[in-house]
Amino acid sequence: MAITVVGSVAYDSIETPAGRRERCLGGAATHFSLAASFFTDVRVIAVVGEDFGPEQEAVFHARKIDTRGIERAKGKSFFWEGSYLDNLNEAKTHQTDLNVFASFEPKIPAEYRDSEFLFLANIDPVLQRRVREAMPDVKLVAGDTMNYWIKDHRPALLAMLKGLDILLINDTEARMLAGNNNLPQAARAVMAMGPRLLVVKHGEYGATLFHRAGADGEASKTFRAPALPLEEVVDPTGAGDSFAGGFFGYLASQEKLTPGALRRAMFYGSVMGSFACERFGTERIAQLTRKEIDDRFEQFRELTHLD
Amino acid sequence: MAITVVGSVAYDSIETPAGRRERCLGGAATHFSLAASFFTDVRVIAVVGEDFGPEQEAVFHARKIDTRGIERAKGKSFFWEGSYLDNLNEAKTHQTDLNVFASFEPKIPAEYRDSEFLFLANIDPVLQRRVREAMPDVKLVAGDTMNYWIKDHRPALLAMLKGLDILLINDTEARMLAGNNNLPQAARAVMAMGPRLLVVKHGEYGATLFHRAGADGEASKTFRAPALPLEEVVDPTGAGDSFAGGFFGYLASQEKLTPGALRRAMFYGSVMGSFACERFGTERIAQLTRKEIDDRFEQFRELTHLD
Repeated sequence: MAITVVGSVAYDSIETPAGRRERCLGGAATHFSLAASFFTDVRVIAVVGEDFGPEQEAVFHARKIDTRGIERAKGKSFFWEGSYLDNLNEAKTHQTDLNVFASFEPKIPAEYRDSEFLFLANIDPVLQRRVREAMPDVKLVAGDTMNYWIKDHRPALLAMLKGLDILLINDTEARMLAGNNNLPQAARAVMAMGPRLLVVKHGEYGATLFHRAGADGEASKTFRAPALPLEEVVDPTGAGDSFAGGFFGYLASQEKLTPGALRRAMFYGSVMGSFACERFGTERIAQLTRKEIDDRFEQFRELTHLD
Repeated sequence: MAITVVGSVAYDSIETPAGRRERCLGGAATHFSLAASFFTDVRVIAVVGEDFGPEQEAVFHARKIDTRGIERAKGKSFFWEGSYLDNLNEAKTHQTDLNVFASFEPKIPAEYRDSEFLFLANIDPVLQRRVREAMPDVKLVAGDTMNYWIKDHRPALLAMLKGLDILLINDTEARMLAGNNNLPQAARAVMAMGPRLLVVKHGEYGATLFHRAGADGEASKTFRAPALPLEEVVDPTGAGDSFAGGFFGYLASQEKLTPGALRRAMFYGSVMGSFACERFGTERIAQLTRKEIDDRFEQFRELTHLD
């Protein structure tokens, strides 16, 4: 089943202990859709500037991603510059130029209307909510957010959360949103705000899937997927979005949202997150094969299975 | 097979968001031996002062732990006071009185000589090495250490590490010991110092078992055990020692050190670490039943298993 994703398509300048890249293709919707494209059809809604050319578009088309919802506006694309020199787990932002993104008004192409899955990548919760309301017939809605919206745009964020089935955030965001440092308690508080499923990402330690009590029956217990201890982390930019793409892309490829499908989706999320870190920007995932994904899935199974 | 453990038996005054306890029974050898006693026979070598009475000794005897190696010296027992008010993952030390521990000279009772397993809990590496050399016939030796010895007693620590089969430390310690922030690379560097197996503990995110290349055959791959997301962490003191007790106690109960036995040992370590946090000091583990341990083992399996 097809996924529509709304979010940023951007240029990133990134410095890590492994080196530096200038203006490589990035943005949450980019990383999400590339990762999800290995599992299902993906359609992107975003805005880019006049600096977005055929070379960038080709990265999407090589993965058969529908870009008819990527609007061209006068001006420059969203630009972010950051580094991970002291800590690979946390980006230090040097510059953020919203550019054409500052006046982004998501428009949903008619061809996207039959999408059964919707992913609201990390953008202004007012826009996330608008897209969600414009697509009332989708079967499953997942989304992401970040500390900035949690701290300074809480009412808009809470209104958006009511429309989500699944929220994917990291530890710090979950604790901040709930105002509670205990993870299971924070998870319950967040799920009371709307989403019946919550994925909390722990960076290099994996991720945990929480279910709202009674939401998915007895068989749906808390599940923890590992992360692979990586020999070399070249660039963690987009790892969280790639996790979301693997997770939601796999779910969209399944007939039913069974507990087993959700557990495998958590593993595919971890798999795609691990690949994302191995090269700068989209370099690794744009070149990936399904065989590499399946092999790594087995590596993850070996990493945690008792028998 | 019996384990001999050398380490501290102490009194701890602990403050956490859940409350405060004055002078409760603690020390690495205490937490280790209580956890290990559910799996095998345990014999303790330690020194205590005149303040260690029948009430404290009864905690060991209730779990059939051999205390003939606990020496009584003139003076007071080792005392530690700490709190976890800001961060449950890291203790803030307020006071450390070595007392009788300052002149500890481990003596090995004749009755302990046939122990096949030896655990060197976190004490001066000079003493750890002395005990290890005095028991040359043991089948398997595991040990722990901490940042203080890594930073300021490196030559003695390196000499001790050569005598270990298994080292159990946390992330920060592994990275500090290796001088490398990448975990798999740090693990290889640490295993080149002596131990052929390395357990790196990640606190609330579980633990990873690394094997030295070629040390245990093809089947021995890196393994990651989860930690249970706990509803309430009352007191994390002793969680690492309880992990070590569950891990090494389970191994000592097995005929052979197979990859499967090592994986299950990692789970039993996580199980005992999770119980340790649920009450102050030894309160939870001293009252535990084998049934509770087996039930929680199944909970851990459900937490991570795909199928």
